[in-house]
Amino acid sequence: MALRARALYDFRSENPGEISLREHEVLSLCSEQDIEGWLEGVNSRGDRGLFPASYVQVIRAPEPGPPADGGPGVPARYANVPPGGFEPLPAAPPAAFQPLLQPQASPGSFQPSGTSFSYGGGALQPSPQQLYGGYQASQGSDDDWDDEWDDSSTVADEPGALGSGAYPDLDGSSSAGGGMAGRYRLSTRSDLSLGSRGASAPPQQHQGSGAKSSATVSRNLNRFSTFVKSGGEAFVLGEASGFVKDGDKLCVVLGPYGPEWQENPYPFQCTIDDPTKQTKFKGMKSYISYKLVPTHTQVPVHRRYKHFDWLYARLAEKFPVISVPHLPEKQATGRFEEDFISKRRKGLIWWMNHMASHPVLAQCDVFQHFLTCPSSTDEKAWKQGKRKAEKDEMVGANFFLTLSTPPAAALDLQEVESKIDGFKSFTKKMDDSALQLNHTANEFARKQVTGFKKEYQKVGQSFRGLSQAFELDQQAFSVGLNQAIAFTGDAYDAIGELFAEQPRQDLDPVMDLLALYQGHLANFPDIIHVQKGALTKVKESRRHVEEGKMEVQKADGIQDRCNTISFATLAEIHHFHQIRVRDFKSQMQHFLQQQIIFFQKVTQKLEEALHKYDSV
Amino acid sequence: MALRARALYDFRSENPGEISLREHEVLSLCSEQDIEGWLEGVNSRGDRGLFPASYVQVIRAPEPGPPADGGPGVPARYANVPPGGFEPLPAAPPAAFQPLLQPQASPGSFQPSGTSFSYGGGALQPSPQQLYGGYQASQGSDDDWDDEWDDSSTVADEPGALGSGAYPDLDGSSSAGGGMAGRYRLSTRSDLSLGSRGASAPPQQHQGSGAKSSATVSRNLNRFSTFVKSGGEAFVLGEASGFVKDGDKLCVVLGPYGPEWQENPYPFQCTIDDPTKQTKFKGMKSYISYKLVPTHTQVPVHRRYKHFDWLYARLAEKFPVISVPHLPEKQATGRFEEDFISKRRKGLIWWMNHMASHPVLAQCDVFQHFLTCPSSTDEKAWKQGKRKAEKDEMVGANFFLTLSTPPAAALDLQEVESKIDGFKSFTKKMDDSALQLNHTANEFARKQVTGFKKEYQKVGQSFRGLSQAFELDQQAFSVGLNQAIAFTGDAYDAIGELFAEQPRQDLDPVMDLLALYQGHLANFPDIIHVQKGALTKVKESRRHVEEGKMEVQKADGIQDRCNTISFATLAEIHHFHQIRVRDFKSQMQHFLQQQIIFFQKVTQKLEEALHKYDSV
Repeated sequence: MALRARALYDFRSENPGEISLREHEVLSLCSEQDIEGWLEGVNSRGDRGLFPASYVQVIRAPEPGPPADGGPGVPARYANVPPGGFEPLPAAPPAAFQPLLQPQASPGSFQPSGTSFSYGGGALQPSPQQLYGGYQASQGSDDDWDDEWDDSSTVADEPGALGSGAYPDLDGSSSAGGGMAGRYRLSTRSDLSLGSRGASAPPQQHQGSGAKSSATVSRNLNRFSTFVKSGGEAFVLGEASGFVKDGDKLCVVLGPYGPEWQENPYPFQCTIDDPTKQTKFKGMKSYISYKLVPTHTQVPVHRRYKHFDWLYARLAEKFPVISVPHLPEKQATGRFEEDFISKRRKGLIWWMNHMASHPVLAQCDVFQHFLTCPSSTDEKAWKQGKRKAEKDEMVGANFFLTLSTPPAAALDLQEVESKIDGFKSFTKKMDDSALQLNHTANEFARKQVTGFKKEYQKVGQSFRGLSQAFELDQQAFSVGLNQAIAFTGDAYDAIGELFAEQPRQDLDPVMDLLALYQGHLANFPDIIHVQKGALTKVKESRRHVEEGKMEVQKADGIQDRCNTISFATLAEIHHFHQIRVRDFKSQMQHFLQQQIIFFQKVTQKLEEALHKYDSV
Repeated sequence: MALRARALYDFRSENPGEISLREHEVLSLCSEQDIEGWLEGVNSRGDRGLFPASYVQVIRAPEPGPPADGGPGVPARYANVPPGGFEPLPAAPPAAFQPLLQPQASPGSFQPSGTSFSYGGGALQPSPQQLYGGYQASQGSDDDWDDEWDDSSTVADEPGALGSGAYPDLDGSSSAGGGMAGRYRLSTRSDLSLGSRGASAPPQQHQGSGAKSSATVSRNLNRFSTFVKSGGEAFVLGEASGFVKDGDKLCVVLGPYGPEWQENPYPFQCTIDDPTKQTKFKGMKSYISYKLVPTHTQVPVHRRYKHFDWLYARLAEKFPVISVPHLPEKQATGRFEEDFISKRRKGLIWWMNHMASHPVLAQCDVFQHFLTCPSSTDEKAWKQGKRKAEKDEMVGANFFLTLSTPPAAALDLQEVESKIDGFKSFTKKMDDSALQLNHTANEFARKQVTGFKKEYQKVGQSFRGLSQAFELDQQAFSVGLNQAIAFTGDAYDAIGELFAEQPRQDLDPVMDLLALYQGHLANFPDIIHVQKGALTKVKESRRHVEEGKMEVQKADGIQDRCNTISFATLAEIHHFHQIRVRDFKSQMQHFLQQQIIFFQKVTQKLEEALHKYDSV
């Protein structure tokens, strides 16, 4: 008997390879095993494709009555089945996102991502901790700070809790660690694909009213779209409310290139140093503590990775249209190995650099609390700030209330749409090329550490061999040459070593930068989705006005609020371009400078060797 | 029935893996198939090993009487078989040489040399042309100058004439030709082993009296040893005679490091340029002509490769203890390809350089005739000189008569022996390390032409890909970066090309030098053999004097003539060390200089790229 499942909610396919579902519809499944939260099956209209596993319930008992051969009559048969399904839902898989930047995702080629590029979750994508009780449970309780959830190691210790492989290899991607040669693995495309995007999440309690199959006018059918979850829809429809002090307003201003975030009047930077292994509970638990020194306070604070992770979750929840930089990848094993600590520290420095240079993120309360509160000496103040952040009401829909934007006249809707579409194409192409460059850099590094080093050292060895043969002739006129050739051999050995050490200096930083930007690129589909959702609402409301179903005033309100979102989105896009040009310029310069220094060192070695022949 | 063979002559094993044979002895063969002129079998004493195929005759008919189980009685049974065997000998395999510098040659591991290192034959080793009628037939006839035997192409066209694979791949070693990538083949040890040494040749008419199994006292049993063939034995035994004018004397003098050749009072050099394709017989025949300009005449002469080859044959015949540099390798196909012509020209320049810097070779008549006679304008003079050289009587044994040496008191026999043995070890070790370096250089060149180039160009391509993605953003502050990254991509492309072109500049000359020296190293075993043969004769004659079988005067004569050979050998060894130090010093300097220039070029490319970011 073919496996079957019943749709619990409507699902609208948004990408090639997906199929739409109607609530109560019965589908035949190709397999009960989901792939990253997606199932493959055939719907009642005979379309075959992927849909979120959490949107359906597998039918375990033999189906009574005629086989579900589809057709419009079938859903009615199950109309009396209550929404929510027959069985309790399994532990929630990750939230719903379209694999917008994954052109390779198609039925049949849809593979588990292996070692996925695992910089935390997307800006609006709940992290595994949130989904599996890590964060959500801890929000109200400070006791949990002492849990070992720095690296989701508790989850890693209990693989069963991860569900059906939604994040099959989240923590394994850098487990190679150790020696240099092991570091530059042969990478595959899936290694570097944009964030590990799971399938759609089922409705969650705090996301408001339960899903209804017959959505009200002006509401998305898909209750789990980013537009809805981010609060974008609620805001556009005028449902958000909250009091914002003028001083807390976030300003979008008009710059020479269009809307941009108002600059941070108090710019600062923050160093991250001294990763130190700490223990507590008489050595039962260990963790790494980093010393942070922000330039605007000059007071060091000490933070663990879990503090960064907590902060990241607050920011991702609070800012719907801001690309919160992803944290460096998590890792279950080898957390205390020197290589990993050094790599993570570099990742955190990049992260901090991007945080501090974002006008909105840099100034927000929870980040300032993180940067300035001396948790180790004033536990109480720390906990207060922490609780305040977790209870912050100006998140999601309400965040948009805090925005102060230029007059609407500054926006041309068509121009906005074209700019957003252009940026969408840009992110796709940049992601592809970043992926390619990362792959090439990784391969190039691997070759230098292994092949190049070996080749130069073989040359060195052969020269030394020749000099050893020549040493059998100890006549005076031969000795100088023998020594010079031996020296040349040593020089080539040293050049081999230089090749092997070089990637740390030039290619590694390039790859670090690419990783950070791949995180940003993974954030933007959601940001764009929110803006596009708002724009759709504007068009819808205009139609309603034309049809006399809506008051002009209400539609204008929708338009105004959509403009607010557009201003913010364009400001964020502008900020992205600004830091991109800044970062890639400085990174390319650094790369070339390091390469130049390297080749100069090689030249110097050769010149030293050449001079040995002067006296022969 | 086991294959058997009968020994036609005595053969004394001189190297591990060989076995001795007695005339008429019956051996069992492991295979009828010879390997480079050697057969493997078990002799009558039960020793298993290699012996020259031409020293035995395979027994085709069933052996009458008891099976040849060896034992001292067996040889007597065939005592009435006449020397010369039952069947006519096959076309002569190459002359006999012990694989003295081939430590890998042992029973079981004895493999055909594949693409052997094919710089002509050894100084005393008849070239394939000599053996297969090429030269010997042409010596008396000037008509043959027009034959296409430049590259032994007639032999190559008739592989059957080559016999049983004695030179299985003589002309195939550089047939790859063409593109750069094809040039640096994966080489194996056998590619580069010292000259292709065949097994012993059977007696030839011009080598004097037929072989007798019962040698006379003071004569070597082995009529085909280098010592005998070179004329060394005849000279030592006082059998050489000829009139030498004082002006034709070749002087060995005592220098600070011992005996050395008297310097050439009229040193010169000779350029080799303008390789030009010439045709004759209305375009039916083509050849390459080189322009030679010796510095002492400044008159250009034109020579073909076959002229060089003819000259080489004359020199190798004339000078028993001088290492005549080998000519660049022969090649049957692709003779008119630019790459090959350029390579051959470089090889001829090296050859000419070594000829001109050898005090004896540089001054000898036939070489001077070759350098100065304008064959194209004065055909008659050219033919006269050619005939004179071919009829030169002062070759082989008589050559030693032309030597003028310091007083015998300058030589300590023990010291001579120790010096010669030391040099023997030296050549072995130098050959091993030259082989290794050649292999490494070949591999390194191949890697640069393929792998290194590819890696740098992949980096270039990825940078260009990134700049293409970035070009989707055409805001003013982005354009400069896009262009700079594109330029960087091009720079890495160019660096890839530099890597691919580099081996021509530095590694190829190193390999050319090694090839030349591997030729010299292949000559020395024979030179040493002649000296050692002479020394043995001295010891033998002293024993005879003690036993009253020889007059003291005769023994003294032997000693004197042996001293002459020793002086010449030591002078030649000294010359080898001198040019070795000179050549390797200048080649190592050239190599390092080229490498430095290369890395400076790379650095410059990178600096150009770096400057593009200044204005971003």
